[in-house]
Amino acid sequence: MTLMPMENVPEQTVNRLPIYLRCLVQARVIGMQVVNSLQLAQMAGTNAAQVRKDLSYLGELGTRGLGYDVASLIVHVSEVLGLSEVRRVALVGFGRLGSALVGYRGFADRGFEIVGVFDADLAKIGEGVVRTGFEPDGLTVRSMQHLEDDLRELDAEIVILATPPDAAQEVADRVVAAGVCAILNFSPVRLEVPSSVRVRPVDLSADLQVLSFYLARTD
Amino acid sequence: MTLMPMENVPEQTVNRLPIYLRCLVQARVIGMQVVNSLQLAQMAGTNAAQVRKDLSYLGELGTRGLGYDVASLIVHVSEVLGLSEVRRVALVGFGRLGSALVGYRGFADRGFEIVGVFDADLAKIGEGVVRTGFEPDGLTVRSMQHLEDDLRELDAEIVILATPPDAAQEVADRVVAAGVCAILNFSPVRLEVPSSVRVRPVDLSADLQVLSFYLARTD
Repeated sequence: MTLMPMENVPEQTVNRLPIYLRCLVQARVIGMQVVNSLQLAQMAGTNAAQVRKDLSYLGELGTRGLGYDVASLIVHVSEVLGLSEVRRVALVGFGRLGSALVGYRGFADRGFEIVGVFDADLAKIGEGVVRTGFEPDGLTVRSMQHLEDDLRELDAEIVILATPPDAAQEVADRVVAAGVCAILNFSPVRLEVPSSVRVRPVDLSADLQVLSFYLARTD
Repeated sequence: MTLMPMENVPEQTVNRLPIYLRCLVQARVIGMQVVNSLQLAQMAGTNAAQVRKDLSYLGELGTRGLGYDVASLIVHVSEVLGLSEVRRVALVGFGRLGSALVGYRGFADRGFEIVGVFDADLAKIGEGVVRTGFEPDGLTVRSMQHLEDDLRELDAEIVILATPPDAAQEVADRVVAAGVCAILNFSPVRLEVPSSVRVRPVDLSADLQVLSFYLARTD
């Protein structure tokens, strides 16, 4: 199966693909071989029409009245998400959050391999990166001094940015200069990057603020 | 200013309010007293029409041709988000991610106070929760045994769930039984909860998978 050009897939659809994938894997675990759009919608927290529309961007997949073959859909969605190959990820900012992210099993389990860890704090440089449940891999904290060269040498495709906010833009500039096109940004700062670079912001406080909105309605 | 009933505010708008708030605070830091919808849109990564539409749900705020008063809009958005009062938050699951979250300054800085920390691991119970940059507050890890009673006693409004996936639903059930109406869920599991309970899922791998989608288009 070849990848279609998917420039036209709406961003909101792309955002839901990982959720569908997770639900499909759960469906397989409980022994389902076929899933219809209503079932998938219920698992994913959306509606059947949305599921059909989202999956229609990926090609002709389901059989009318029958549904989707779970195993093939897993393969197909994974392929569309580019998960058939291991993605090489570097982390910049080995503070408390950074060290939690490096040890997060969910990344490794889904094919995202941490290949480099950087920090500006001289006291941390050379420190071994201990990760419970991982094979020892000799990963140590690197200095920021040769960040661009190191990222190129490591062949990092994605950078996880977990620096303090005031360092985030400068680090992002260097990451972009090194040719990295994808940044997962944990700093609560909007990064300016060229349009060829994709930034995915993660703002944990924003999530709590959204919950607070609903709590304020029920207080 | 009284809070309007905001049942009709679309979820996507609510999701953007914390982003506007962050941008407004940045605008104030750089000395801006008035901001128009285009400027706010550029800072927030959306468009001016969207900004005007989102803010129109909050009432009559801007002056046509002039823009929004930064200071009053900060107060107003904060109020709508229910941020005028401190929100009491409990964390369940004091693993690597949980301990990073507890030490995350962004929560405390925005009025979310961690009032309780729970873990099932007997070896951790009673352990002091050390948080760099925080005043010592005597927070220690609690056992799960009396979770419901403890949550009530602590008057926790929000629970951050950072347990292993296979424990997440059972913990969520107990949290709901304790009367908590808001859950920030870091487990990659879709939780079943009554409709009165609001769950905000955070799936860090999903964010990487979305980035991977775009990388696969440029490989």
